[in-house]
Amino acid sequence: MDLHVIAEAVRARTSLPFTDRDAERILAAILTSEDIWRIIDLSDVPVMALCQALREMGKAGWLEFAGERIRLTPEGRGLIQGAGIAPALELRCPRCGGRGVELGPVAPIAEKFRGIAKSRPEAIQDYDQGYVTEESTLYRIAFLWARGDLAGKELLVLGDDDLVSLAAALTGAPKRVVMLDIDERLVGFVREVARGEGLQVEALQHDLREPLPAGLLSAFDTFFCDPTESLRGFLAFAGRGISALKGPGGAGYMGLTRREASLSKWRAIQRELLERGAVLTDLRDDFHDYVNWPYIETMRSWEHLPVKRVPGRDEPWYRSALIRIELVEAPKVANERLEGDIFTDPEAATT
Amino acid sequence: MDLHVIAEAVRARTSLPFTDRDAERILAAILTSEDIWRIIDLSDVPVMALCQALREMGKAGWLEFAGERIRLTPEGRGLIQGAGIAPALELRCPRCGGRGVELGPVAPIAEKFRGIAKSRPEAIQDYDQGYVTEESTLYRIAFLWARGDLAGKELLVLGDDDLVSLAAALTGAPKRVVMLDIDERLVGFVREVARGEGLQVEALQHDLREPLPAGLLSAFDTFFCDPTESLRGFLAFAGRGISALKGPGGAGYMGLTRREASLSKWRAIQRELLERGAVLTDLRDDFHDYVNWPYIETMRSWEHLPVKRVPGRDEPWYRSALIRIELVEAPKVANERLEGDIFTDPEAATT
Repeated sequence: MDLHVIAEAVRARTSLPFTDRDAERILAAILTSEDIWRIIDLSDVPVMALCQALREMGKAGWLEFAGERIRLTPEGRGLIQGAGIAPALELRCPRCGGRGVELGPVAPIAEKFRGIAKSRPEAIQDYDQGYVTEESTLYRIAFLWARGDLAGKELLVLGDDDLVSLAAALTGAPKRVVMLDIDERLVGFVREVARGEGLQVEALQHDLREPLPAGLLSAFDTFFCDPTESLRGFLAFAGRGISALKGPGGAGYMGLTRREASLSKWRAIQRELLERGAVLTDLRDDFHDYVNWPYIETMRSWEHLPVKRVPGRDEPWYRSALIRIELVEAPKVANERLEGDIFTDPEAATT
Repeated sequence: MDLHVIAEAVRARTSLPFTDRDAERILAAILTSEDIWRIIDLSDVPVMALCQALREMGKAGWLEFAGERIRLTPEGRGLIQGAGIAPALELRCPRCGGRGVELGPVAPIAEKFRGIAKSRPEAIQDYDQGYVTEESTLYRIAFLWARGDLAGKELLVLGDDDLVSLAAALTGAPKRVVMLDIDERLVGFVREVARGEGLQVEALQHDLREPLPAGLLSAFDTFFCDPTESLRGFLAFAGRGISALKGPGGAGYMGLTRREASLSKWRAIQRELLERGAVLTDLRDDFHDYVNWPYIETMRSWEHLPVKRVPGRDEPWYRSALIRIELVEAPKVANERLEGDIFTDPEAATT
């Protein structure tokens, strides 16, 4: 019995991509923590596949599920030793949270932004919401600034439960900020805050399954989007952003997780982004920490977890990479309506 | 006269890729510094195209070249104001140097490694050498460790003027370390240090234009390579690394600059890496700082600089991104001999 057998069983029972290396990553995480949320966080294996792998490892006698904990059996320890697997190690810089940037000129608006965020609309499952920490949003704005994509620029935010539009406008640096969201609570909230604070933010209620309004096409220097992670949904939302850019030199930012997207899906996404005329200029994993949403116990993966514990609100396990692309050619994206379910695929864990 | 006219002139006179955004990046850098090396560093535009753009901007009356400095004319300032260009801003975290990681378990070997590096062979132009700071090498090792690519793993270093093999072996973490280099001075140095320190490093003299020895094919978990940056040379060396990996789950690390590679070249490289069965999992720009090499005044781009100053040895301007790939499919790379010049292309600035 080895990693290869586990990987084959996971693939056979779930039809999900899963490599020997994924099995190794899970065991490395278990060497570091017995807690399910830390294991999910450290292993960087999509949750649905990870749950199946834990069950297979349990059946193989490597793990035992004791109350809320996941423990290695002597047999599991022997296997890990034989395979030479080392404990998962996080070496995140404590000053910047691993993001590599300073807040710099964004620091002066941090307190104001945190105050505004206190009364934000709560995340709801209907729209696959789940927002990042205020710190993550602030660092994201600093990153845009350092890349020359904020000051003096026209910024479009496609889906804004992270309140990127407000943080960007608070800096006073952008030339124009437009946000689109399907959720009228968010549109109303952003409008109200903008009016109260005297910020220039155009907030529009819009369903991204519909084509972008003509006035927003080829009109922006920068877009930000944290798409739903089904392959089709991700590419559709990112495509809306790309079609909103003025042309070569325009920049796009996206969030993407290892929680709901396998590296095979990452590869499919990257191929398509390149195909559409973009290059990846930055890819910083674990840039974003999410605040745990209130619908943990009804999310898709909950029933698959071999041990169950509701994580604390500020106990991040759902993190995402920040990806920056830049157009080097005129974009190739159609502005068409999307039909059918664009939110779920076999790797979806939260909707 | 606007950015578009400059960009067209640069493309027409050099046949290099160059966008309006590149022209903007150069002006943003000049708003922040008058020094040629800081402008090169901050603008992230390939040196050869940047030199031509500076000349075009000079001809347009936007810039004047005063001794060692580059200054904006009143006309240049007016243009920048009209275009709404903001000064280039670096927000690099001072603790981790923008890399996002801590040295962690690599810290204890730092002093020893710095001592060893004091007597390293000097960089020579014949082999397109130029090494990163010892700090960059140490952080690189920490990054590999944090990604699970060092401890208990078999590591191949293709071209080792950065002394990655020695730093990796000093940690005691890898299962096996092999280094290849064309330069017998380096092979001899690594062998001698390894013998003196009791380190397990296999050092082999090898020209990467030749096929990899059969014993190194499909034999490693991780490779590191800082390739020459011609498109053909980069892909050839990266391909050698990929063909040395055992299969899916294997990881590769490469350095790539904005100094000798346009974003168009980046895109061509990324497309090919994906095509070969890999996904990009990390892309951290400015991870590596280079020590200035002794042949600055004979490098290809020197005569093109509109103002000339030899930078100090510890005044970094040549930086590169760290790219991590992981195989998600069996690799598609031929192990063939490469004929002809693989070191130069129109964007090459240092050889």
